[in-house]
Amino acid sequence: MEITFYNVLDLIGTMAFAISGTRLASAKRFDWFGAYVVGVTTAIGGGTLRDVLLGITPFWMTQPISLILSGVALLWVVVFRKQLVRQKNTWFLFDTIGLALFTVTGIEKTLGMGYAYWVAIIMGTMTGAAGGVLRDVLINEVPLIFRKDIYAIACVLGGLVFWLCDMAGLDMKISAILCGITVLTSRLLAVKYHISLPVLKSAD
Amino acid sequence: MEITFYNVLDLIGTMAFAISGTRLASAKRFDWFGAYVVGVTTAIGGGTLRDVLLGITPFWMTQPISLILSGVALLWVVVFRKQLVRQKNTWFLFDTIGLALFTVTGIEKTLGMGYAYWVAIIMGTMTGAAGGVLRDVLINEVPLIFRKDIYAIACVLGGLVFWLCDMAGLDMKISAILCGITVLTSRLLAVKYHISLPVLKSAD
Amino acid sequence: MEITFYNVLDLIGTMAFAISGTRLASAKRFDWFGAYVVGVTTAIGGGTLRDVLLGITPFWMTQPISLILSGVALLWVVVFRKQLVRQKNTWFLFDTIGLALFTVTGIEKTLGMGYAYWVAIIMGTMTGAAGGVLRDVLINEVPLIFRKDIYAIACVLGGLVFWLCDMAGLDMKISAILCGITVLTSRLLAVKYHISLPVLKSAD
Repeated sequence: MEITFYNVLDLIGTMAFAISGTRLASAKRFDWFGAYVVGVTTAIGGGTLRDVLLGITPFWMTQPISLILSGVALLWVVVFRKQLVRQKNTWFLFDTIGLALFTVTGIEKTLGMGYAYWVAIIMGTMTGAAGGVLRDVLINEVPLIFRKDIYAIACVLGGLVFWLCDMAGLDMKISAILCGITVLTSRLLAVKYHISLPVLKSAD
Repeated sequence: MEITFYNVLDLIGTMAFAISGTRLASAKRFDWFGAYVVGVTTAIGGGTLRDVLLGITPFWMTQPISLILSGVALLWVVVFRKQLVRQKNTWFLFDTIGLALFTVTGIEKTLGMGYAYWVAIIMGTMTGAAGGVLRDVLINEVPLIFRKDIYAIACVLGGLVFWLCDMAGLDMKISAILCGITVLTSRLLAVKYHISLPVLKSAD
Repeated sequence: MEITFYNVLDLIGTMAFAISGTRLASAKRFDWFGAYVVGVTTAIGGGTLRDVLLGITPFWMTQPISLILSGVALLWVVVFRKQLVRQKNTWFLFDTIGLALFTVTGIEKTLGMGYAYWVAIIMGTMTGAAGGVLRDVLINEVPLIFRKDIYAIACVLGGLVFWLCDMAGLDMKISAILCGITVLTSRLLAVKYHISLPVLKSAD
C-alpha cells in the first residue's frame, strides 16, 4: 500500500470512527473485546453494508488495515483515557474528515460499478453514516444521527455537489474534492451554529 | 413502468409500510431525516434482506419508486398529522394489502430462482414482515410482531396456500391470488376477533 | 445426509443455541412465533452473516435441518420448561460444543474459499458468536458477550491454534480438532475459574 494524502485521511477517519465506538462501549461497561467489536463496527460497518448491497467482497476482507487501526484506537482509549476530553475537538475534526472521505469513497466505488448517481449518493451516505447506526444498535441505544445534528444530511449534500460538478463537466477528481469539502464544511458549520433538522411532530 | 392493478397495490402497500415507520419514529422525536430512514427501512427492509440472502441486487437499487414513495409518506405524516388517527382503519387495511402483496412477490421471486417451496415461504414471510422488525430495531424497541397479533404467521399461512394450490395443479397466477387473499383475510379476521398466538411461558 | 460424529455435534450445538434464544425470548413474553424466530436466529445467525460476507448462499437455504431443530428446541422449551433449570449444566456444555464446532466450520469454509487465515479466524469467531449478538439485538438487550465471560475470545484462541498447527505442518483434520478442543476447554475453564476480560474503563 502506497502512502498517499488520501491514505492518511483514510487512516485518520478510521481511527476517529473506531474511537467513537470504543468510547461509547466503555461508557456501557463493555469488556475489551466488546469495546473492540463496537469500535471496528463503527469504522467498517458503513462500508461493509455498502459492499454487501453492491454484491462485492467487503473491503476489509482483502486488507486488514481498518481492523488493525481499530486495535490502535482501543489502545488509544486505554492509554489516553483521561486526555480524551481535552482531545475532543481534534477527534471531532478527524471524525468529520472520515465522514467526508468515506462519502467520497462510497460514491466513487458505486459509480465505478455503473450505478446511477442517486444510488451512488445513497451508498456514499451509507458508507459515511451507517457505521454509527450499527454502533448504536450494538450498544442498545436509539441511533444518535436520527435525532441530533447534521450528519448524514451532510453526506447527501456532498453527494449532490459531486453530481452537479460532474454534470457541469468538471474533472472527477475535482468533483470528488468539492464533495468532500461540502461534507466537511456543512457539518462543521452546522455544529458551530447549532443548525439541526426539525424534529418530526407526532400526533400521538 | 406500466401501471397495472398489481403496481397500484404495491404503491399502496409501500406507502402504508413507510407511514407506519415514519409515525413510530416521530413518536420517538426523530428528526425528518431519521423519520425518513425509518420509514424507508420499514418499506424496503424485508425485500432487501430477501435479495441479499438470494444473492441478487436489492430491488430498490434499480428502481427508485419505493424511495420516492417513502418521501411522500413522510410528507403525508407532516401534512395529515392530526387526521392520521381518523385514517387509522384505512392505513391498517393498506398495510395488510402490502403484507399480502409483499409475501406473494417474495414467494414468486424465490421460486423463479429455482429454490424449494419451504425457502420461498420463508422469503415471502421475510419480504412481508422483516421490514417491521428492522424498523423496531432502529427505534430501539422490542419487535412488535414477536409479541402481538397475527402478522408473520399470516404470511406463512398464505405461503402454505400457495404451495397447496400449486401442488393441486392450479395456475400460478391463481395460486398467487389465493395466497394473497389468505394473508389478507387471516390478518383481518385475527384482528377483528382478537386472535393471537399464545405467549411462550417462561420458567425463569 | 450421512450421520457422522461431526453431524451429531452439529445437531447438539444447533439445539443448544436455539434453546438459548427461545428461553430468552420467553422471558420477554414473546409469542411462539417470536420465540421461534429468536431461537432460529441464534442458531443460524452467525453462519448466515458469514455466508453473506463470503458472498455465498446461506447454508440453511439448501438444507432445512437447522430450521427443523429450532422447532424441536421450541417444543423442548414448552415441554421441559420446569426441568430446564436442572438441565442447565447439560445445555451449557452443549452450547459450548456448538461454539467450538461452529468456529471450526467457519474457519474451514473460509479457508476453502482461498482467504487468508486472519479472515478465516474472524469468520470462525462470527460463526460461533454472532448468532448470540443478533439474538440480543432482537430481544432489545445489550449483547451479553460484550460484557460477560470468555466467549468470542475462546473462538479467537481456537482459531490461533488452528493456524499454528497448520503452520507446524499438522494434518488439517488434527488442526481442526485441536482448534475445537481449545475453544471448548478455554470457555469451560474460564467459567469454572470465573476468568473474564477486564472492563474497559470509561473517562466519562
